[in-house]
Amino acid sequence: MNRTLTALAALSLCVPAAANLPPPPLDLAQQADLALTSDDYAYAFVEGLTTEVGPRQAGTEAEARARAWAVEWLKQYGFENIAIEPFMMDTWVPGDIARARVTAPFAQDLVVLPLGDSAATPAGGIEAEVVFFRTVDELRAAPEGSLKGKIAYISHAMSRTQDGSQYGFAGPARWVGAGIAASKGAVATVIKSVGTDNHRNPHTGSTSFPDGVAAIPAGALSLPDAANLERMFVRARGRPITMRLEMNPRRLGMTESGNVVGEIVGRNPSLPPVLLACHLDSWWNGPGAFDDAAGCGIIIAAARRVANAGRPLRTVRVLLAGAEETGLWGSKAYSAAHINEPIAVGLESDFGADRIWRFDSNFRETNPALHKKIASAVARFGVSSGSDVATGGADLNIVRDQKGALIDLQQDGTRYFDLHHTPDDTLDKIDIAQLRQNVAVWTQVVGLLASEETAILTGTPIPAAPAIMEK
Amino acid sequence: MNRTLTALAALSLCVPAAANLPPPPLDLAQQADLALTSDDYAYAFVEGLTTEVGPRQAGTEAEARARAWAVEWLKQYGFENIAIEPFMMDTWVPGDIARARVTAPFAQDLVVLPLGDSAATPAGGIEAEVVFFRTVDELRAAPEGSLKGKIAYISHAMSRTQDGSQYGFAGPARWVGAGIAASKGAVATVIKSVGTDNHRNPHTGSTSFPDGVAAIPAGALSLPDAANLERMFVRARGRPITMRLEMNPRRLGMTESGNVVGEIVGRNPSLPPVLLACHLDSWWNGPGAFDDAAGCGIIIAAARRVANAGRPLRTVRVLLAGAEETGLWGSKAYSAAHINEPIAVGLESDFGADRIWRFDSNFRETNPALHKKIASAVARFGVSSGSDVATGGADLNIVRDQKGALIDLQQDGTRYFDLHHTPDDTLDKIDIAQLRQNVAVWTQVVGLLASEETAILTGTPIPAAPAIMEK
Repeated sequence: MNRTLTALAALSLCVPAAANLPPPPLDLAQQADLALTSDDYAYAFVEGLTTEVGPRQAGTEAEARARAWAVEWLKQYGFENIAIEPFMMDTWVPGDIARARVTAPFAQDLVVLPLGDSAATPAGGIEAEVVFFRTVDELRAAPEGSLKGKIAYISHAMSRTQDGSQYGFAGPARWVGAGIAASKGAVATVIKSVGTDNHRNPHTGSTSFPDGVAAIPAGALSLPDAANLERMFVRARGRPITMRLEMNPRRLGMTESGNVVGEIVGRNPSLPPVLLACHLDSWWNGPGAFDDAAGCGIIIAAARRVANAGRPLRTVRVLLAGAEETGLWGSKAYSAAHINEPIAVGLESDFGADRIWRFDSNFRETNPALHKKIASAVARFGVSSGSDVATGGADLNIVRDQKGALIDLQQDGTRYFDLHHTPDDTLDKIDIAQLRQNVAVWTQVVGLLASEETAILTGTPIPAAPAIMEK
Repeated sequence: MNRTLTALAALSLCVPAAANLPPPPLDLAQQADLALTSDDYAYAFVEGLTTEVGPRQAGTEAEARARAWAVEWLKQYGFENIAIEPFMMDTWVPGDIARARVTAPFAQDLVVLPLGDSAATPAGGIEAEVVFFRTVDELRAAPEGSLKGKIAYISHAMSRTQDGSQYGFAGPARWVGAGIAASKGAVATVIKSVGTDNHRNPHTGSTSFPDGVAAIPAGALSLPDAANLERMFVRARGRPITMRLEMNPRRLGMTESGNVVGEIVGRNPSLPPVLLACHLDSWWNGPGAFDDAAGCGIIIAAARRVANAGRPLRTVRVLLAGAEETGLWGSKAYSAAHINEPIAVGLESDFGADRIWRFDSNFRETNPALHKKIASAVARFGVSSGSDVATGGADLNIVRDQKGALIDLQQDGTRYFDLHHTPDDTLDKIDIAQLRQNVAVWTQVVGLLASEETAILTGTPIPAAPAIMEK
């Protein structure tokens, strides 16, 4: 805060009191400093989207309202070349019934939600014995046909990590558990939510079924309900545990979704743009404040702040992708439509709203000068340079397809899997100070990239071009 | 922990290695110390009841299962004179549909649960404009008939306090809000949950309707949903906000509930007993780990530990009351049945499982020696003597009706209204160290009371009676 105050004080000293001239704009570093202590662009985006639209399941009318809302937002914030780029997708919706009840030996209701692509149960539900699997590997080892007529329960608990790396361990319970169980004859699957909280709000998310295996009902129990069910297995001492499960999700067939794009046009629009990505859809069960309204708020705020410091050399483009959650439909559609238009570098914000603590690039060895320049510029925000090779967020398929430059601004994921894909992913979970730090770091990094005069991946100088637009 | 280890070390020194005699029992203070560091009686009760029975709505078969379970528990822990004392009650059940959706101008679902004694909506729900009231006083000031055809929303937010005193301010939104709204013509009421958390789990609880005012549908929104609705009122700038509400609670008429009692019979059973109370029922939406499985676990553990220190002078009786939540049915029935059997002193545990930080009695001035003796004995557990006059818990109607002695062992309520009456009131919320401190304090206090040779309220010496049973 001292830095900003000093900067502002210095500015006022430079402007003669009687000049009647507007003060000179804050430069890029000053814009970043200002974001750190007082940015409200990103918070206002999250508040607006979660309040005025709320949940926005991919392929539904709610997601379409979110696109219209985002277009208005980009207009208000002075973006150019704003467009909705529609695409078609195969749409699943959750229905309005999700009930699980242990019927014996310890009768009680459990809190469940369907996983994306889950089949429906018959009306009235199905009742079957529950078979307990500690891990996906235990489920894989079950003999073929051994689950015939049974409900498979998969525990496979997740631990809390700052870098979110435990998602790689725990995710498969959701991603492939139902498919494996179905292939062994199970009539349904319930998993322990892939999450780290202790609230009775299940974590949904996509599951999948192998070719030739028909979808079965697949649900996630909240963490406390899963723990309760596991205690029942201990206390039942071999007596069968039976569960009645009722859910009515359904498939809508092909419906329209779309990506929203907007630009801060650079002084030399012929240069490949800097692409900032997030996704606009959320699961139906929550307004997706962390996932990923915050990401969209951050990239829009950063692009706006970069522009506030003066029109950048390169165009900065924001991509608010549609239908990320249900299979990266927007990311794939964007790549397919624009694969022949080179992107200078891609960055995505899709891991909540807590502080950035590390950054990785995929050009640390090929363009070390730029990597070091970024490292030097963000160190003051508590961000260190990592040694991983950046792979980019889910909505950056186009950059991966072009084998282009990527930067990952790594957010602190300690809280992320408390909220991920739950009803609890609401505005109040946003820590404003940490959200502002995100915008500060993004502003600094995007501003540097947008003024970069080398090809970002290789460090090769780009031809000096006449500025096509006035600064 | 040092104290206990020292005590145990001292004990072993007293027992000659070759004696082959059982070690002498720990005395009362040692039992309390042991509870502080290693009690699992109370936790085991909470784990067992929440796992094997779960939610236990008053007057339902689930509550009956809880009574049977508790009887078995008391038998296992060596209680005597165990009994179920049945009574009849007018029973309300919540149904299985609770949906709220803002239909305009910002269409989205909100998370709602019915309040106890809520009426049902018509099937398919009702849709109406929502009128915003900041407080119950604002609602009271609304002109008669002004809510005709409308849904009243009452905010009336609660703050977090250690002593729970904000319940007195915030509670009326739930207790009387729906009745006031109905009397002014409202077709339904939704309130901001009376709670302090930020999770999407509404806080239910009883509401009531004045004589001559027909019940209307009355629900509680989760705190994040209520905050969202309030933001909508700001953003709507005068446009009407409409909501569709659907809930299907119903009344079952008179059904059976019951109290469970058990005793540690004293050496002189002719003396009035020490009565320890809790309630066995919970709301249907959660297993009631804090409210009030923990309370029952604490009083049973304390009574057991008092007995472990040797049979006390007075009988210690536990009362696991039925149907507290829906109107103190068990408390009233117990008083009606036993009003002519004097109680020496009553204590209740019904405010969660966090540490006791203060105690109050209603005999500080009439029996100061005893009050000071208790104060001196519990100070080592971090409990100070308060200057309030104890009024006793909800299930101590009999003691109030007898104008008898009361002690309130005040628990830290900082977290209590995060969980109170929510689905989130689950086993994992129990802080074992704090639960043990409760048992330690209760053991110490109940042991002192059960060996007290004065009439507790007045300090008058009781006639020295021959010990009827061996120590």
